Amino acid sequence: MKPLRVGLCGLGTVGQGVVRLLANNSTEIARSTGRPIELVRVASRSAARMDLGAVPFSTNVDDVTRDPRVDVVVEVIGGCDAAERLWIDALAHGKHIVSANKALIAERGDALFARAAAARVGVGFEAAVAGGVPIVKALREGLAANRIQWVAGIINGTTNFILSAMAARASPPGRNAPVKSAFDEALMEAQALGYAEADPTFDVEGIDAAHKLAILSALAFGTGFSMEGVYTEGIRGVSGEDIDYAAALGYRIKHLAIARRSPHGVEIRVHPALIPEDRMMAKVDGVMNAIVVNSDAVGSTLYYGPGAGASPTASAVVADLIDIARGQVRVPTVREPDARRAPVELVTSAYYLKIPAEDQPGVLAQVAQILSRHAISIEAVIQREQAIRSLGERRWVPVILLTHRVSERAMNLALAEIQQLSEVVDRITRIRVDALDDHA
Amino acid sequence: MKPLRVGLCGLGTVGQGVVRLLANNSTEIARSTGRPIELVRVASRSAARMDLGAVPFSTNVDDVTRDPRVDVVVEVIGGCDAAERLWIDALAHGKHIVSANKALIAERGDALFARAAAARVGVGFEAAVAGGVPIVKALREGLAANRIQWVAGIINGTTNFILSAMAARASPPGRNAPVKSAFDEALMEAQALGYAEADPTFDVEGIDAAHKLAILSALAFGTGFSMEGVYTEGIRGVSGEDIDYAAALGYRIKHLAIARRSPHGVEIRVHPALIPEDRMMAKVDGVMNAIVVNSDAVGSTLYYGPGAGASPTASAVVADLIDIARGQVRVPTVREPDARRAPVELVTSAYYLKIPAEDQPGVLAQVAQILSRHAISIEAVIQREQAIRSLGERRWVPVILLTHRVSERAMNLALAEIQQLSEVVDRITRIRVDALDDHA
Repeated sequence: MKPLRVGLCGLGTVGQGVVRLLANNSTEIARSTGRPIELVRVASRSAARMDLGAVPFSTNVDDVTRDPRVDVVVEVIGGCDAAERLWIDALAHGKHIVSANKALIAERGDALFARAAAARVGVGFEAAVAGGVPIVKALREGLAANRIQWVAGIINGTTNFILSAMAARASPPGRNAPVKSAFDEALMEAQALGYAEADPTFDVEGIDAAHKLAILSALAFGTGFSMEGVYTEGIRGVSGEDIDYAAALGYRIKHLAIARRSPHGVEIRVHPALIPEDRMMAKVDGVMNAIVVNSDAVGSTLYYGPGAGASPTASAVVADLIDIARGQVRVPTVREPDARRAPVELVTSAYYLKIPAEDQPGVLAQVAQILSRHAISIEAVIQREQAIRSLGERRWVPVILLTHRVSERAMNLALAEIQQLSEVVDRITRIRVDALDDHA
Repeated sequence: MKPLRVGLCGLGTVGQGVVRLLANNSTEIARSTGRPIELVRVASRSAARMDLGAVPFSTNVDDVTRDPRVDVVVEVIGGCDAAERLWIDALAHGKHIVSANKALIAERGDALFARAAAARVGVGFEAAVAGGVPIVKALREGLAANRIQWVAGIINGTTNFILSAMAARASPPGRNAPVKSAFDEALMEAQALGYAEADPTFDVEGIDAAHKLAILSALAFGTGFSMEGVYTEGIRGVSGEDIDYAAALGYRIKHLAIARRSPHGVEIRVHPALIPEDRMMAKVDGVMNAIVVNSDAVGSTLYYGPGAGASPTASAVVADLIDIARGQVRVPTVREPDARRAPVELVTSAYYLKIPAEDQPGVLAQVAQILSRHAISIEAVIQREQAIRSLGERRWVPVILLTHRVSERAMNLALAEIQQLSEVVDRITRIRVDALDDHA
């Protein structure tokens, strides 16, 4: 049978992984496909960093997108502007596209998919979310009979590694903080192991996870491919002490990406969250990724595996190529987003609060009164005498509260008041709690 | 667009689930499919047990398989003989088949798929393994670029519920066994909750899991659809005490279904196994299912969710219908099995052994000597004085051993000798250990 002819743009880690995988597993691939997949052309900005055998190489991606022999363009150059030009050119030449570019798809997907629809070509992006875990296919096909209620993921390996490393160093709650923060130590470890970039902003601030979440939300809820209204909060505000207190309360802190139907629209948000320790998601450690999908017919299913790396990501790219080779070409459908996005102020969550307050009677009463005035009820309190520490002349203690569910707006108002109390000596920490349940 | 017309055979729990899901989620389904899926005919042995609206009902399945309006026959009657006749008739009439019938597919799949190939129709069986978890699609499509090394699953909810309930009742190791065994108590609880049949043989003896494993192995390794050489062992031999000792050694006992490439062919086996407590699989409790797939490009990915129930199983059936409606018809390919099956005697495992031995010096030395003669080395020993109990006049103690990896054959020979020792007062328990790693 006629081979599927692939042109590869980008020869970084993932691109090299694709070249290797197509070569090494050609038997498996031909068996699943009934048809060979042939790499016919490669381009990348800089000179080829690996032996490509007889495959022609060019430093100009136009040589790939315009080559009449190419059926599918694999775009793994990353970034937005150059990649967007590449897509537009490839689509204009009637090529299918397979891409791992989460930033481009999340930020400019709607317009690009409209072009692909007009050109009647397929676009595959399994590799854009959670690397080797076939979550895009699960959402689009495996769970296609379901109405999805919520999707929650640990979809950035760097932040999960850092939080796991911080938890592994956990000390009994209430000790004075060490000189170097647990976060800084864990980040350095992640960098030493190659799990974090020299500039870790993109991962640590949650931007990478937000891109992936916007894609998951588009697939699960039809919210469209754009970053509008995606609430994004990184993990710099989480301390080792928070992780310890959370553990004492029966929770683990994870960097969670959540998309959830609500009466106000679809909530799309990335932030640290306390999750109950008995959940499977609480046990996802290190650089691993996992996604729970809760849907009406199936209930909760979970997908777990390596979310990054040359070879897992290449596996997802080649899975998309195999679908196309089998004739399963997915031409995007153009439509207005089905679901609006809920503003973050209307999100309701339970909260973990750490209030650094002077160690004197009556503080907890004042705090409780303010919360009560905003109809926020308290589920648990920890206030350990041995946690007393000093700030200048003042002796203070962290007051740890777990609240019941309340709107973001109500919590903002209450916290503004509490922060103003003269007994509160420093900034209040707040971390949302998500039980990964139905919010019934 | 022309609807896909479905004929349903079987109106038990799953059949009713399919009717409800097609009705309730028709919007979601049409959205993912671009084409309606219409139920046009239903048959079941006994009178209709639910309101089918205007859909014609018959007690003769031939009315469905021979109806020229039917494009796809959904077979959810279960069992082998009647279902096989139904398939053959439906295939003869050129219908696609979607089925949840793991027993039929595992036992007679090769012959039936050859007929389907000759008729050039598609067969879907996502629902046959792990209910709502899209593992069939993950193996066939999501991981299609990979060479799979091993698949390990907890794929029977009943046995997992029983073992989880036994573990939840765990008492400190070494106590005398209570009057009623932990297994019997947990089985009664499972029956009371509807998780186990009045006659639990099919689940408890591992037959159901073995069927599903044979299907997973066929998909992962091309071993063909038959039960030949599938090693099957149930959970009746596992006691509460074993679970407690395993916990003390850092393991959980699960009923594991494993298919694994080995130098001797593909091992296909279902049996209880100790797995290290830090593995995600160790945390799969209650009636939930999970499957780990280890493959060369991705490494390990895990798929978790409800493995049974009307609505999750119906979700898988309808997912297959949606694939067909989209034109993704999977006509089976006929070929000789790619991989032979390894005889169980050549399987290598680490072992947990419980040897009930008289409490006198020298017993452990004798046991160790026999093991050593068979080149079996010991990783850990527990022999607790407080575990001493009596059998008639004899005082004995369970000697717990954990061995390194050894062939089944060597272990059989060693155990036969140890069992003959005059100090061994009762039958030795042996449970395999699987670290869910590469056996490197």
